[in-house]
Amino acid sequence: MIETKYSYAFLDIQPTAEGHALIIPKYHGAKLHDIPDEFLTDAMPIAKRLAKAMKLDTYNVLQNNGKIAHQEVDHVHFHLIPKRDEKSGLIVGWPAQETDFDKLGKLHKELLAKLEGSD
Amino acid sequence: MIETKYSYAFLDIQPTAEGHALIIPKYHGAKLHDIPDEFLTDAMPIAKRLAKAMKLDTYNVLQNNGKIAHQEVDHVHFHLIPKRDEKSGLIVGWPAQETDFDKLGKLHKELLAKLEGSD
Repeated sequence: MIETKYSYAFLDIQPTAEGHALIIPKYHGAKLHDIPDEFLTDAMPIAKRLAKAMKLDTYNVLQNNGKIAHQEVDHVHFHLIPKRDEKSGLIVGWPAQETDFDKLGKLHKELLAKLEGSD
Repeated sequence: MIETKYSYAFLDIQPTAEGHALIIPKYHGAKLHDIPDEFLTDAMPIAKRLAKAMKLDTYNVLQNNGKIAHQEVDHVHFHLIPKRDEKSGLIVGWPAQETDFDKLGKLHKELLAKLEGSD
């Protein structure tokens, strides 16, 4: 449907809503962290282009890593899922955790140290 | 936590899992289709960088558009949500639709026509 230097996009043949599309990097890797950056740059512009072509106003973009995270095919793919009503499309479950600023502060510090020097 | 030319990233203060992070384009727009392409190019590379820094193996990347699609803040943001167990992180509900190749073929054709000439 769309092909760029780095990605393909087409309709999902097992849709969870009409217009459910897939955006797939042209680099084989099971998970997001396996894919070189350049193959990740146009996924969101493509999602946007598809959303505009379908005149979507309400939709989700989802990328799953690992079986527990609902990944079913071991090649990175982004779902563009129209959300027109409660019964079709992605149902988001969101178990809230307590806001714990001490814990967040600690994690933030740790992450900063890990990110330093990483590209 | 991370700042690039086009985006910020930081920890969500209302996490659904430890390490739940947000990636936010430096361009104000409520929905993905409101954001210029250049502000969408590094969101996924940043998600990858965060996943690597946290040594995540199982996680979801999610971007919601519209209240019905679980969007709560009217400025585009990408969630990076660690998925370590069934009880925390994103719960994905996925109502299946029938696979209907006639319908898919028609939609595919319509979309091709709409995409033609669009950038």
